Amino acid sequence: MPRYAEMSKAELEAELAEVRARYGEMAARGLKLNMARGKPSAAQLELSLPMLDVLDSEADLAAEDGTDCRNYGVLDGIPEAKRLMAALLDDEPENVIVLGNASLTAMYDAMVRYLVFGALGSTPWGRLPEVKWLCPVPGYDRHFSICEDLGIEMIPVPLCEDGPDMEEVERLVVADDAIKGIWCVPKYSNPSGITYSDETVRRLAAMECAADDFRIFWDNAYAVHHFSGDPAEQDIVLDIAEACREAGNPDRYLKFGSTSKITFPGAGVAALAASPANIAEIKRHLGVQAIGHDKLNQLRHARFLEEGARLPEHMAAHGALMGPKFELVEKKLAEELAEAGIATWTNPRGGYFVSFEGPAGTARRIVELAKNAGVTMTGAGATWPYGDDPADSNIRIAPSLPPLEELDAAMDVFTCCVKLAALEQLVEE
Amino acid sequence: MPRYAEMSKAELEAELAEVRARYGEMAARGLKLNMARGKPSAAQLELSLPMLDVLDSEADLAAEDGTDCRNYGVLDGIPEAKRLMAALLDDEPENVIVLGNASLTAMYDAMVRYLVFGALGSTPWGRLPEVKWLCPVPGYDRHFSICEDLGIEMIPVPLCEDGPDMEEVERLVVADDAIKGIWCVPKYSNPSGITYSDETVRRLAAMECAADDFRIFWDNAYAVHHFSGDPAEQDIVLDIAEACREAGNPDRYLKFGSTSKITFPGAGVAALAASPANIAEIKRHLGVQAIGHDKLNQLRHARFLEEGARLPEHMAAHGALMGPKFELVEKKLAEELAEAGIATWTNPRGGYFVSFEGPAGTARRIVELAKNAGVTMTGAGATWPYGDDPADSNIRIAPSLPPLEELDAAMDVFTCCVKLAALEQLVEE
Repeated sequence: MPRYAEMSKAELEAELAEVRARYGEMAARGLKLNMARGKPSAAQLELSLPMLDVLDSEADLAAEDGTDCRNYGVLDGIPEAKRLMAALLDDEPENVIVLGNASLTAMYDAMVRYLVFGALGSTPWGRLPEVKWLCPVPGYDRHFSICEDLGIEMIPVPLCEDGPDMEEVERLVVADDAIKGIWCVPKYSNPSGITYSDETVRRLAAMECAADDFRIFWDNAYAVHHFSGDPAEQDIVLDIAEACREAGNPDRYLKFGSTSKITFPGAGVAALAASPANIAEIKRHLGVQAIGHDKLNQLRHARFLEEGARLPEHMAAHGALMGPKFELVEKKLAEELAEAGIATWTNPRGGYFVSFEGPAGTARRIVELAKNAGVTMTGAGATWPYGDDPADSNIRIAPSLPPLEELDAAMDVFTCCVKLAALEQLVEE
Repeated sequence: MPRYAEMSKAELEAELAEVRARYGEMAARGLKLNMARGKPSAAQLELSLPMLDVLDSEADLAAEDGTDCRNYGVLDGIPEAKRLMAALLDDEPENVIVLGNASLTAMYDAMVRYLVFGALGSTPWGRLPEVKWLCPVPGYDRHFSICEDLGIEMIPVPLCEDGPDMEEVERLVVADDAIKGIWCVPKYSNPSGITYSDETVRRLAAMECAADDFRIFWDNAYAVHHFSGDPAEQDIVLDIAEACREAGNPDRYLKFGSTSKITFPGAGVAALAASPANIAEIKRHLGVQAIGHDKLNQLRHARFLEEGARLPEHMAAHGALMGPKFELVEKKLAEELAEAGIATWTNPRGGYFVSFEGPAGTARRIVELAKNAGVTMTGAGATWPYGDDPADSNIRIAPSLPPLEELDAAMDVFTCCVKLAALEQLVEE
C-alpha cells in the first residue's frame, strides 16, 4: 500500500470504501472498551493486595518514633513514610511533607496558597492583575484544569524530545513577570512519555525569570514507572532541587509525587518535597488546614514498600504488565498506519501514555468515530490548555486499563478510525 | 472554709501559704500529664481496632454499585459511605460529599473556595476590602486559626446556654455586609459543651443578613458523642438544613462532620452536607482539586459502622469511657473550688470539653502554674479569637486522653493552681 499522500483520488475513494466497511463491521460488534484515563488495570491493583494485610487489629500501630498512628498529630508524616516518599521524590526526608491521597490535590492546594498568600513574601498572586503559567504541550489535562479553575492564563510551549522548548521558555520568562511558573512532568511525560535531559533541567533551574517568585511545579508522577526492570540511562532525571541550588535559585521548585500508580489510586499516599524555606512556608498554612494526614495509611505503605527498598521489585511487576501493552500499541500503530504515512506517535520506555499525532484537523473526528464504535479515548484537545489543540491533531492513548485482548480490539478500532478520518479528509479536499 | 472573697487578708495569706506548699509538693512529683487537646484515649481507639480487619487481601473491595474501591474515581463518595455520613450529618445521602480524613480541612477548603470564587455568583471574598466572621466565645481555636490564616477579621459574640447570643448576632449581621458567616458547633460545643436550642437554630436560619452570601459553618463534630446511651431531649438539635429551607434561605449553611472521634482521628472519613446549589458549586471546583478521596477507607468505615446502624452501640462504648472522666472533673472541681467561690465551669452531657472560668486575670497564670507542675492544659486565650481572652479567665479542660488515675492527679494539680493563682491575686491586691 502506498502512502495516502501519494494515492490518486480514485485510489483514495476505493480505500475509503474499504475502511468504511471495516469500520461498520467493528461498530456493529457492540464493543465497550476504554483507553481514556491512566488507570491501572485490575492485574496491577492485585500486586498491592497484600498491603491490606499489613495492618490488622493485632498489628503494632506505632510509628518507629512511638507515635500512635491511630490518633491525631504529625503534620508532615511519620518518619518511615517520609523516608519512603523521599526515595520516590529523590530527596531527603527532612525536605518532605507527606500529604493525603493525591498529588493532584497537593498541586491544587500549592497553587491556591500562592494565590492567597504569595510566595516567601511576594504579593499574593490573586491580587495581581494577571497570572500566567507555561504549559508544555501536549500535556496533562488535570494540570490545565487547575489553572483554568483558578483563573491563571495558560501559555502553551512546545514539548520536545528532551523537555520543553527551552529557547521559547527562556524567551518568555525573562520578558514577562506575570509568568509565575511552569508545569513539568520530567519523566515519561504525560502524554508523550519523554524524559527531560540534564541540560533541560539545568536550564529550567538557571534561567533568568522576570518573576522573582517563579515556581516549577515538578510533577514526578512516573518517577519509578519504567517498563523494564531498570530505567534506561537517559531516563535518570537530574535532581531539580540540586540543579536549582547550584544555579542559586534554591526555592524555585516544588516536587510532587504519590503512590497512586504504585499501590492503589485514590487510596495511596502523596507527598511534596521542597527547599527548607518553602517547606517552612507550606507548613505554616498546612498546620491550619490540617492536624495531620492519614498515618495508618502512611504506616501501611511504609511497611509494605519497605520504605522504598521494595520499590524496584514492585515496579518491575507493574512493568511486566505494562510493557506488553505498550508493545502492542506500538505494533498495531506501526502495522496499520506506518505505510499510509498519516500519523506519528511516541514509543515510551515508561509511564502511562502514548502521544499520537494524526493529520491536522482529524483528532476530534477520530475520537468521535472511536466512541461511536464503542472505544472511549481521552477527549481530543485534552492535551492542550483550554481543551484547544489548534491543529486538532493530538490524541492521548492510555493503554493501561484494558487487558491485552481488549486492548488489541481497541487498537484495531482506533487505527481504523484514524484511517477513516484521514481518508474522509483527503477525499473531501 | 469560707469563700475567698469573704476572707480577711490574714486568712488569705495563711491559705496562700498552705496552697503554695501543696503546689510545691505536687510540682516535685515530676508529673507529665496532658489535658491540652481533645484526643481520644487509647481505650477509645481500641474500640475501633476491629475495623482494621474489615478489609484484607481476601475481602470484596467493590462498593455496592460495583465501583472498584482500589482504583481512581467517585468524587463524592461511594454510596454506602454517603449513607453513613448522611446519618452522621442528619441529612440525605444526595446532599453529602464524602471527603478526606478531616473536617478541619473541609472547612478550610470551603473558606478558601469562597475567597477565591465567591458563593453562588457573589464577588470572590478575597477581592472585597474586608471580610468578617462571627465567632461565638468561648470557641474552638482551630476555627479561629482558619480565619486568622486567611485574613478574615473575627468578631467575638457571647455563647450562652442555648447557643450564640442571638440578639447580638442579629444586630451585627443586619448592619454589616462584610460579615460573611459564623462558626457554629451546635452540639456539645467546643469548649462549653452546650447544645443549641431549636429557637437558636431557627433564628440563625431566618435572621436578616446584609450579606446575601452569608454562610453558617455548622461544625457538627460531636453529633453522636453523648456520654449516656441516648442523648437527652435537649441535645437533639434541630436540623439547620430544614430550618434554612423553611426560612427561605436554603443555601445559608454548610454542615461538616467526620468520624475522627468515632473511629481513628486522622485516619477517619470526613464529609460535608449542603443544599443542592452549594453541592453543585463545591463539586465543580472539588473535581479539579481531586479525582476522588480514599474509597478503601470509606468502604472500611461503612462496613464497620454498618452504614450508621452500629453508631449507637459504638458511641455508647465511647460514652462509657468518657462519662466517668467528666464525672471526675465535675467532682474534683466541685470539691476543691465550689466553697472558695472563685470559679464556674460547665458540666456537659457529651462532647470532649469542659469550659472553665476562673477569676479575671488568672487564666494565663493558672496554665503556667500547671505547666510548671507537669500538667499541660490548652493555652489560655485559645478559646478566643487571636488567642486574646480579654478577661484572661477562660480555660478549656480536655479530659479525654489521660486514663482516670492520671486525670485524677491532673485535676488535683489544676485545682491547686486555680486556688494559687486566685490567692496570689487577692493577696497582692
